[in-house]
Amino acid sequence: MRTVAATLETALSQLFAEPVKVTAAGRTDAGVHASGQVVSCVTERSFPFQRLTQALASLLPSDCSVREAAAVGDGFSARFDARERTYVYAVLNRARPSALLARYASFVSQPLELDAMRAAAAHLIGEWDFRSFAAVPAQEQAIRELRRIEFRRAGDLLRVEVAADAFLHHMVRTIVGTLIECGMARREPSDLVRVLAARDRAAAGPTAPPQGLYLAGVRYADGYDSFAEPPILA
Amino acid sequence: MRTVAATLETALSQLFAEPVKVTAAGRTDAGVHASGQVVSCVTERSFPFQRLTQALASLLPSDCSVREAAAVGDGFSARFDARERTYVYAVLNRARPSALLARYASFVSQPLELDAMRAAAAHLIGEWDFRSFAAVPAQEQAIRELRRIEFRRAGDLLRVEVAADAFLHHMVRTIVGTLIECGMARREPSDLVRVLAARDRAAAGPTAPPQGLYLAGVRYADGYDSFAEPPILA
Repeated sequence: MRTVAATLETALSQLFAEPVKVTAAGRTDAGVHASGQVVSCVTERSFPFQRLTQALASLLPSDCSVREAAAVGDGFSARFDARERTYVYAVLNRARPSALLARYASFVSQPLELDAMRAAAAHLIGEWDFRSFAAVPAQEQAIRELRRIEFRRAGDLLRVEVAADAFLHHMVRTIVGTLIECGMARREPSDLVRVLAARDRAAAGPTAPPQGLYLAGVRYADGYDSFAEPPILA
Repeated sequence: MRTVAATLETALSQLFAEPVKVTAAGRTDAGVHASGQVVSCVTERSFPFQRLTQALASLLPSDCSVREAAAVGDGFSARFDARERTYVYAVLNRARPSALLARYASFVSQPLELDAMRAAAAHLIGEWDFRSFAAVPAQEQAIRELRRIEFRRAGDLLRVEVAADAFLHHMVRTIVGTLIECGMARREPSDLVRVLAARDRAAAGPTAPPQGLYLAGVRYADGYDSFAEPPILA
């Protein structure tokens, strides 16, 4: 299977003429997009880094692009030094699906009630054990600080922005899938209190499909934020 | 090779339980998109046409969708009864390409000068022999009425709208490719007069890539217009 990491590693290894491994700030499962991913790597080579994006552009396939590159301090890790991740989820919410958006938004034909989704989301804000929203029974520590869930309509698209210090595997998609159930009045907003307390994946709703999800930005201690709006929402 | 027509014909033949052939208003070559294509077909079956889009949605792959369907008079042809076609062309005009837009816009890194493109386009408006912009030496009649070429920036995207009674094969893409040369100052706007008069494909610029092109709307004598903005520009 092609992965973004392997694709970048191939290009960087070619450029630096040595094996390069990259560390990414956030996971992007198959079908998930990133407009603001950050990766770090270590190289022994000196390179004019202001020309790195241009050099990579000629080595990368058209579905993987690098927006900017910079030299950073020793020991910097795109993953471990990240202070906040922002994901954006796009839902096409209208009667009929769109062929042109099929890979870039998920599709819900039933009109979604945003007030109910907002009321439900409010219960999730804060520092909680998010085990109920994790892909597999999380062995590790599952406490995360969910800082922001915002909803905005842009034409037929519903844009959901979710920010936290970090996320468990499938956490954004399961939160969105559960909030969509609230938006369809299949689940009461207040039920989210019970879902969180259950610490059991079975208590939450379905995992929303990957194609609507974008890793949109990563913020670091020095204030740098890689945020970029997904093109279909810009 | 998969085609939109064959994909639709398979679904319609299954639905009507008889072989169905479709006639499309406009050609969409490989890589070209359509947000407002119109197709017609003939069937002996009676069918509740208000439910046709929903029935097709379950039979079509995710990258082919039908927005609406209606019964029309005998002898109607989506192709031969069309009075005007509108194409939209999207150019990502910034320093770096975008992985997320790679299949939905063409990419030009050099800043494009819109005033020059508008001045060049003005020479093409009207009824002309557009042979210079046709894919292959047009054997047939090559006179078309070009009614509108409009330019608009939407963030990093340049949106070009081109409308005519009908188009020759590759005509929109060759017009756009030639206008882009004007926007890069590689060709004078006034050169378009010579290009038209030459009636020779070699006089025009390159054929712009297919992924930026959308058949956006088709207008009929009764005033019906299928226009729909491409999602990345909406």
